[in-house]
Amino acid sequence: MTRIDLNCDMGESFGVYTLGFDQDAMPHVTSINVACGFHASDPVNMMKTVKLAKQHGAAIGAHPSFPDLVGFGRRVMAASVEEIKADVTYQIGALWGFCLAEGVKMQHVKAHGALYNVAEKDLAVATAIAEAIKAVDPGLYMLCLANSTMVAAAKNVGVKYVEEAFADRAYTAQGNLVSRKQPGSVIHDVDLVAERVLSMVTTGAVTSIDGVQVPISAQTICVHGDTPGAVAMIKKIREKLAAAGVTVQAFGQ
Amino acid sequence: MTRIDLNCDMGESFGVYTLGFDQDAMPHVTSINVACGFHASDPVNMMKTVKLAKQHGAAIGAHPSFPDLVGFGRRVMAASVEEIKADVTYQIGALWGFCLAEGVKMQHVKAHGALYNVAEKDLAVATAIAEAIKAVDPGLYMLCLANSTMVAAAKNVGVKYVEEAFADRAYTAQGNLVSRKQPGSVIHDVDLVAERVLSMVTTGAVTSIDGVQVPISAQTICVHGDTPGAVAMIKKIREKLAAAGVTVQAFGQ
Amino acid sequence: MTRIDLNCDMGESFGVYTLGFDQDAMPHVTSINVACGFHASDPVNMMKTVKLAKQHGAAIGAHPSFPDLVGFGRRVMAASVEEIKADVTYQIGALWGFCLAEGVKMQHVKAHGALYNVAEKDLAVATAIAEAIKAVDPGLYMLCLANSTMVAAAKNVGVKYVEEAFADRAYTAQGNLVSRKQPGSVIHDVDLVAERVLSMVTTGAVTSIDGVQVPISAQTICVHGDTPGAVAMIKKIREKLAAAGVTVQAFGQ
Amino acid sequence: MTRIDLNCDMGESFGVYTLGFDQDAMPHVTSINVACGFHASDPVNMMKTVKLAKQHGAAIGAHPSFPDLVGFGRRVMAASVEEIKADVTYQIGALWGFCLAEGVKMQHVKAHGALYNVAEKDLAVATAIAEAIKAVDPGLYMLCLANSTMVAAAKNVGVKYVEEAFADRAYTAQGNLVSRKQPGSVIHDVDLVAERVLSMVTTGAVTSIDGVQVPISAQTICVHGDTPGAVAMIKKIREKLAAAGVTVQAFGQ
Repeated sequence: MTRIDLNCDMGESFGVYTLGFDQDAMPHVTSINVACGFHASDPVNMMKTVKLAKQHGAAIGAHPSFPDLVGFGRRVMAASVEEIKADVTYQIGALWGFCLAEGVKMQHVKAHGALYNVAEKDLAVATAIAEAIKAVDPGLYMLCLANSTMVAAAKNVGVKYVEEAFADRAYTAQGNLVSRKQPGSVIHDVDLVAERVLSMVTTGAVTSIDGVQVPISAQTICVHGDTPGAVAMIKKIREKLAAAGVTVQAFGQ
Repeated sequence: MTRIDLNCDMGESFGVYTLGFDQDAMPHVTSINVACGFHASDPVNMMKTVKLAKQHGAAIGAHPSFPDLVGFGRRVMAASVEEIKADVTYQIGALWGFCLAEGVKMQHVKAHGALYNVAEKDLAVATAIAEAIKAVDPGLYMLCLANSTMVAAAKNVGVKYVEEAFADRAYTAQGNLVSRKQPGSVIHDVDLVAERVLSMVTTGAVTSIDGVQVPISAQTICVHGDTPGAVAMIKKIREKLAAAGVTVQAFGQ
Repeated sequence: MTRIDLNCDMGESFGVYTLGFDQDAMPHVTSINVACGFHASDPVNMMKTVKLAKQHGAAIGAHPSFPDLVGFGRRVMAASVEEIKADVTYQIGALWGFCLAEGVKMQHVKAHGALYNVAEKDLAVATAIAEAIKAVDPGLYMLCLANSTMVAAAKNVGVKYVEEAFADRAYTAQGNLVSRKQPGSVIHDVDLVAERVLSMVTTGAVTSIDGVQVPISAQTICVHGDTPGAVAMIKKIREKLAAAGVTVQAFGQ
Repeated sequence: MTRIDLNCDMGESFGVYTLGFDQDAMPHVTSINVACGFHASDPVNMMKTVKLAKQHGAAIGAHPSFPDLVGFGRRVMAASVEEIKADVTYQIGALWGFCLAEGVKMQHVKAHGALYNVAEKDLAVATAIAEAIKAVDPGLYMLCLANSTMVAAAKNVGVKYVEEAFADRAYTAQGNLVSRKQPGSVIHDVDLVAERVLSMVTTGAVTSIDGVQVPISAQTICVHGDTPGAVAMIKKIREKLAAAGVTVQAFGQ
């Protein structure tokens, strides 16, 4: 049986500010990455997000970030490895509190924004994240960019992990993401995106921006829920996967 | 066997700022209340505080506050019951992460500063705190001011709780704390403080500011570690208790 | 010549979060109250808001708040008078920096949210605000709720001030705002709102919720720009005022 | 007449946390760099710092930082040039408010910590800072590390500037600061430090870590007030300068 997980950032609202279409997207994804207050979200919003996920049966993960609310965690910070480890532990814990309160189990941890981008390439940072996750609970999965340094760190540390691919991003011939600064890096055609996801899931490969087949091993696909169009894209992906007999299910189940 | 717990606020440093004599006080107390980032502390400091407590065998509790770092959580905020519940859950969780990482069990939760002062008198707020604690883990104790509304809330909610008395504070004939604004509200004489603690522990009563005996039922005594003199006071209290054959031990043990 | 000012909260976006229809509302108001980072906004957003106001000729005011970003400044905090005075000075100053950079003059200061609500009734708080404003620049106006304690404070302190009425709020027979918790407190009918504004401006009175005429002396009317409907309401108010020959102009001009 | 300015970071306390010996150091320095809330300080503390500076006649400057309170502004952040410009403007403005309230003129702006270290080498960042300063008030000086990219930026932008040298830091033969990570980078001998300052002021040169004379052109010398020993060092420097007939005076006077 072929199976795949669809993961999506959620709970990124803050105070009076609303971001994302959590209500609309939640029923269609299988794992969510919940902002923990460092780049977005606040305690009330985290509580609501965990309740909503529980209601729809979505598996819950923490989405820790550098402490940069005004920058939405998108700005690299020269935090020390000790600071990153402690920041990640704090954020996992904060979400853990809401999971305990709702009687749901946390499945995974996925670094957010700039922290993710640094961890992709910097072994010390990826290791700090992996160690923090494993120390909190060896049952937690680390969500790693496929083919990246995160995977090496997860293996070294011995934390459980899954690899993720991006539904709507172009890949280089080397299996890396094409930088967002380059033209063609983000794919907007809904049918093409769904086709590419199906290809990654069923053949373990996708067509690179240069037109060659590049292997992508992924147990989870990152999708978005921050625009109405994004939700439509998730639905299309699920349709395509269902039609091909692929089971869409949280990786931890 | 008569026994008592000594609880002390800890981990109130923040970033480059140092507050309190945690290293000096830790060996002499049995329970600590760890700041969780809302009125003081930060992830690195919380990690260090949990490690230090583990090393000395002090039982660990969360010390949640209103979100007011610049005011050290001493300013009452008109937060809603839902916000307080979520804020408390978040802070317990954040500390829970460090406890999991260090393999130690959290013992209790004690509201900090203005949140404590409101919960003393406001049943809805005390109930929100009690519900948050119980939802995270029914094994956690709520630390309540003796003779206060907090105790009623704990009973209603069905959360485990202990009552605390203050080592160095004067009491009214009704068993309430004399307001800090009044003269004589804080007792500075080390020997007198130790005498009063011993009296509360062994007789269940203390002399009020008006000179009458007032019953105080307490399973834990709040002491301070924020000045060198405060640490000396803790030592004197322990000496006096030891000489009288009282066991000083975390209430959860 | 009859004249009136229309003031509107602006610049309440924060980081990636967008709030309000500033672009749409700016051309139709004459004074704006700019969030200064304590309840909303951030430096980049303040810079953009000042530039936009300059472009449309709107007079600029600071909109200081209690420090409560997650609560949008809507929660009363037990800040001391010294803290309020310093917080207001800080926020006026921060906006002053952008005004200097753009070569525009700041016209006024209007307290936001919970700080406004406290200042309405608490003379010490209103006085602290008035003193902060006057100390920064005696040319600044304090924007006061008509018939409130703010006016008394402004007079005592000797700061310049204007009184404001609310376009879409019901009034009691005593000339106070009907609490938002009561039915009928907010008026949604666009034509009725415009009629009421015209009445306040031309007759100095408005019909209270009990049906009696109540005197409202106002040099500025508070309008909203946070929904597309709100912008339509501002336009309707201006139409009605223009048809009656009322000049709509910033009060400081 | 030979003259020099001694500048010192001040107002770095935050809420209940005290940092630095401002009271002791203030009478002995001629210019101060006031933290503006992004890496340290808060409105009440800024107000007190400006009052104290006024009382002692110290010239006041803003000390803007990346927004990183928990990291004390010591961590480089990948902020955009637009964000840096806006952040600097905001912080200058905030302090400007207190200067207006106290009727004192702001003299200068000196970037703090990681922002200073980036601006030393990155022309775009140094230019953003220079432009922000000039836009707020062309009368303000930019405080630049001698021989650094900051000076080039100040010249390009046309903002007034002074160059600073460090009293207690070793220099390379190229006139750059020896990295704090290297042994010998910080000089602790009070007499030697005073000698070196005198040499820089009277001969325009100092002995490098390699033993050669290196030219240092400085109109201001950075001293510290964060330890009792640091204050003693300032006094010794002043004694030495006075004995040599050098006038110690704010550069803007």
